[in-house]
Amino acid sequence: MADDPIRFGIIGCAEIARKLCRAIDLAPNSTLHAIGSRSMEKAKEFATKNGLPETVKIYGSYDEVLNDPCVDAVYMPLPTSLHGQWAVSAAHKKKHILLEKPTALHVAELQLILEACESNGVQFMDGTMWYHHPRTLKMKDLLSDSQLFGRLTSIHSTSTFSETPEFFEDNIRVKPDLDALGALGDAGWYCIGAILWAANYQLPTAVTALPAASIARNSAGVILACGASFLWDQEDKKVATFHCSFLSHASMDLAISGSNGSLHLKDFIIPYQENSASFNFTSGAKFVELHIGWNVKPEKIQVASELPQEALMVQEFARLAKGIKDSGHGPNGKWPEISRKTQLVMDAVKKSIDLGSKPVYL
Amino acid sequence: MADDPIRFGIIGCAEIARKLCRAIDLAPNSTLHAIGSRSMEKAKEFATKNGLPETVKIYGSYDEVLNDPCVDAVYMPLPTSLHGQWAVSAAHKKKHILLEKPTALHVAELQLILEACESNGVQFMDGTMWYHHPRTLKMKDLLSDSQLFGRLTSIHSTSTFSETPEFFEDNIRVKPDLDALGALGDAGWYCIGAILWAANYQLPTAVTALPAASIARNSAGVILACGASFLWDQEDKKVATFHCSFLSHASMDLAISGSNGSLHLKDFIIPYQENSASFNFTSGAKFVELHIGWNVKPEKIQVASELPQEALMVQEFARLAKGIKDSGHGPNGKWPEISRKTQLVMDAVKKSIDLGSKPVYL
Repeated sequence: MADDPIRFGIIGCAEIARKLCRAIDLAPNSTLHAIGSRSMEKAKEFATKNGLPETVKIYGSYDEVLNDPCVDAVYMPLPTSLHGQWAVSAAHKKKHILLEKPTALHVAELQLILEACESNGVQFMDGTMWYHHPRTLKMKDLLSDSQLFGRLTSIHSTSTFSETPEFFEDNIRVKPDLDALGALGDAGWYCIGAILWAANYQLPTAVTALPAASIARNSAGVILACGASFLWDQEDKKVATFHCSFLSHASMDLAISGSNGSLHLKDFIIPYQENSASFNFTSGAKFVELHIGWNVKPEKIQVASELPQEALMVQEFARLAKGIKDSGHGPNGKWPEISRKTQLVMDAVKKSIDLGSKPVYL
Repeated sequence: MADDPIRFGIIGCAEIARKLCRAIDLAPNSTLHAIGSRSMEKAKEFATKNGLPETVKIYGSYDEVLNDPCVDAVYMPLPTSLHGQWAVSAAHKKKHILLEKPTALHVAELQLILEACESNGVQFMDGTMWYHHPRTLKMKDLLSDSQLFGRLTSIHSTSTFSETPEFFEDNIRVKPDLDALGALGDAGWYCIGAILWAANYQLPTAVTALPAASIARNSAGVILACGASFLWDQEDKKVATFHCSFLSHASMDLAISGSNGSLHLKDFIIPYQENSASFNFTSGAKFVELHIGWNVKPEKIQVASELPQEALMVQEFARLAKGIKDSGHGPNGKWPEISRKTQLVMDAVKKSIDLGSKPVYL
């Protein structure tokens, strides 16, 4: 029993579910028990296409997955507008929940999900994978070094990719009834999360969308590109900006500056390669005599990863679920709180966009 | 006569004048003829300290430099508040003018300088060195490639460095009567210039300072850190942001994204090394199957430079001055126009800061 893996059910057969099937397979403490789609046909097609073992149960509805007593935990790659209903339902069925981001349409809805998890004693985590990469931990070590990095002064992040014309017609991420938050909810989630992560989850005091003319929308009004600045309104004057877009070349930039050092990487959400990722760190940079060069160049710091970051995420989630299941631990509060703060700030960005870029105070 | 170099006079013995002495020496078509300071003592000290040849005339006033008939061109590393008076005076004395940035306290003052240059038939150029590095030309080639780079979508730039407590008390760049524009005029000039350069000098339609709480000032009210966003208010929704600061670790970041490619470098103002500089370019980046990596990583493009960028600047300036002197060419209009646009946008940033981050329309 101590070695029994956490048994996952997946509801929804989105493209990203394929990546999580593999992650569940790779994580040493989890196994895929069931998948469910809105139709049996779709679920079967998904199982065949992805070579799932015959032991995996195939269901033609989400409810059957939730009603399967062998399912310990549910991964939900559903359109955002379905998160509230299905996550709350899963919590009531005592399933631990790994929920794709954005977690909800707004923080009030997420709050209902989190309350359902808490009252049912199940673990909640959102599907932001990069938090679990060992590179992220290594970066945090350096950012926490008061000598090498110093006081945080600024953060800039981008999450952009360029989509095909078909995407703008058909993809759920640009349909107002499915993913009304568009690029903000999808790509922007990562930027907001990265800024909060860098700021040790201290909430900004004010969030201001970049001016309206920079916000792109499709004909249904769904955001295709936007950005914002964050302030903490303190003596130290730290500032953050981000830009997210479905209309620009692929980028996943994170640049963080402090009083004594700076850190940057261009692939923070998905590392260029799976087994090893890097970032650049510079400390104590000065211009040499006559200002004709620098005393130091950024140092490339390489961090190996035995498992892909999504498998590490599954492993951490399963570890927490296992602690609850076997040892009667309570759910861990760190991950739900990170989701809540990210959603809260995302709501503020959305509100500032709706107010024509007026500052929104938190 | 065709081979005679352009003879420079320098007025003001600021730290940066040392770099320009070297550049004038290195550029094949220029020579240092005279330096002038407010006192003979300071001028002599500068000459000794920097090992200037004995042929260089030493003057105890700026006027003597301007009155020396052998001086063809004047380099002016003076505090910004003195630019108007001395640049206009130099133009009237028929001296070509290489003026340190920021060119003036506001665009109206710069306009007087430019008009004086034009009516006296002398060349004007500001001291932004990085425009003259061959790396800059190579980057522009790639940014102009409609296949590899595509349509410009976003630009982000920073120019920051961290100063000693003494700096904030004594340096001219934080004294309201000398350099009232503070970090905006000094570090911000480069960011604004880089954004305009990337946008092919198409002026933004709106400039909005980042919110007031992110703007740091010293006790005299001089800006120590600020930022802004720029919009072009077109269908293509391109957007730019910048952050400049005297309160953060050294950074000189420029990241430019297009629909098909992206470019970034971390040392755009002063290359890490003199003889060779690089930047990173990526085109056609996509996530591989399952989104567990990228198809391409940024390519590091190395560009050699036979002369330091400041010597290339002097060379280009002297070439234009020589064309006027020997061949009766008119002054080149490109460089004054770049200065004017940069100053115009800087004025708009300053105005937006003064208006509490309201958008300023150009």
